[in-house]
Amino acid sequence: MKIPNNRRSFLKKVVISGAASFSIMEIVKASTDKMQKSKRIKLIGNETILFQGDSITDAGRDRENMEVNSSSAMGNGYAFIASSELLYDFPGSDLKFYNKGISGNKVYQLAERWEKDCLELKPDILSILIGVNDYWHMAKHGYEGTIETYKTDLDNLLRQTKEELPESELIIGEPFALPGISAVDESWFPTFDQYRKAAQDLADEYEAHFIPYQSIFEEASKKAPAKYWTFDGVHPSLAGSQLMAAAWLEVVG
Amino acid sequence: MKIPNNRRSFLKKVVISGAASFSIMEIVKASTDKMQKSKRIKLIGNETILFQGDSITDAGRDRENMEVNSSSAMGNGYAFIASSELLYDFPGSDLKFYNKGISGNKVYQLAERWEKDCLELKPDILSILIGVNDYWHMAKHGYEGTIETYKTDLDNLLRQTKEELPESELIIGEPFALPGISAVDESWFPTFDQYRKAAQDLADEYEAHFIPYQSIFEEASKKAPAKYWTFDGVHPSLAGSQLMAAAWLEVVG
Repeated sequence: MKIPNNRRSFLKKVVISGAASFSIMEIVKASTDKMQKSKRIKLIGNETILFQGDSITDAGRDRENMEVNSSSAMGNGYAFIASSELLYDFPGSDLKFYNKGISGNKVYQLAERWEKDCLELKPDILSILIGVNDYWHMAKHGYEGTIETYKTDLDNLLRQTKEELPESELIIGEPFALPGISAVDESWFPTFDQYRKAAQDLADEYEAHFIPYQSIFEEASKKAPAKYWTFDGVHPSLAGSQLMAAAWLEVVG
Repeated sequence: MKIPNNRRSFLKKVVISGAASFSIMEIVKASTDKMQKSKRIKLIGNETILFQGDSITDAGRDRENMEVNSSSAMGNGYAFIASSELLYDFPGSDLKFYNKGISGNKVYQLAERWEKDCLELKPDILSILIGVNDYWHMAKHGYEGTIETYKTDLDNLLRQTKEELPESELIIGEPFALPGISAVDESWFPTFDQYRKAAQDLADEYEAHFIPYQSIFEEASKKAPAKYWTFDGVHPSLAGSQLMAAAWLEVVG
């Protein structure tokens, strides 16, 4: 392909950006290194792995599709990317992936469907990302739950899960929001930060693996504008989905 | 996680499979090495990249969504994985991805919508995977087109594209089918092989980059059963989508 002159100045810029891609991976690694590396989940190859959460996890999945390892059932987000990558990395394995995220969910809505959409599946690895709607719907849409509701509901959910699935590995993703983009303004902070802290505290309490998505997105936003990673401050772009999958894959593999 | 005894024998098996994952990447590299390495498409970072084809490319995308770099518009397949990966690898770039694959399409159906779904988008890189329905619908569903129809139609489509978009880089994916799985039986061969050869011949003629998906899937099927990579012999599984994306990313990056 010929390179028109007006592309040449862009080339220099992108070569710099291209170099930055290596440090993006470093950011992910550094952020997840905050967890104990020894706690990384080593796959045997026959695990059932369940993604749970809200729209970020749902990512447009076909909710009528109950099949295991089905593309349309995994949605168009980090869960699809991470599961495709692991099935590719472990050819011939019996890894079983499910995505049961539902758009708009808050913790109490996970609890209402936990028996069917979690416990019955008996996941060996359970990954939960929940909390942005617990704040958002309270702040903007008249939901009456508070940070105390979030903490109590998530505490109860995790306690129940630990009781019923004592050998399952838990992964808790940090709720995240990037200010200055459509859905998210400065009014979110510092209240929203309490939800992040609650998720981290409960991850510690229940010995769950914690993925610090907020700091991962903040660090990535030093390499490219936040809007590059999340188009509305809450939902990841294509690049943001890959960023989340890369972070998730630092915890499981 | 404790490892029950019945998992330990599986462990050994999967450790072997896990080791095999490295050679899967080698397979992809070896297969794409058949193309001249010098022809690898080096991205500047502001290219428009269009995926075209049938259901394998479509992969359940939201066809009403005309946005660029939109997760739901990219579907649940190799195009989604490859575009997410490149946008992540080139943070802050102005790469623009579109997926216009439509389930069931044969070459003449691409031609009918080529003005709107290709030429108007002015792709710098155009990736086409088409041909399995040209055979399948002829063999099983009463479509009257033959191998000659496929060759002529694809030849005309590529000539028109080269004339109207002379600076675009073309990528042609090899149509593929894995026998012994639901949709595909031995009756497909050797007739189906003529479609593969036609795609390769036309790739050579039009100096397109060629991705040998058939041999990639065949080699991968030595590491895990073909059904692990394609659930019906034609459409990729999650692992197969990642396999295709990995091959595609050997050509562009």
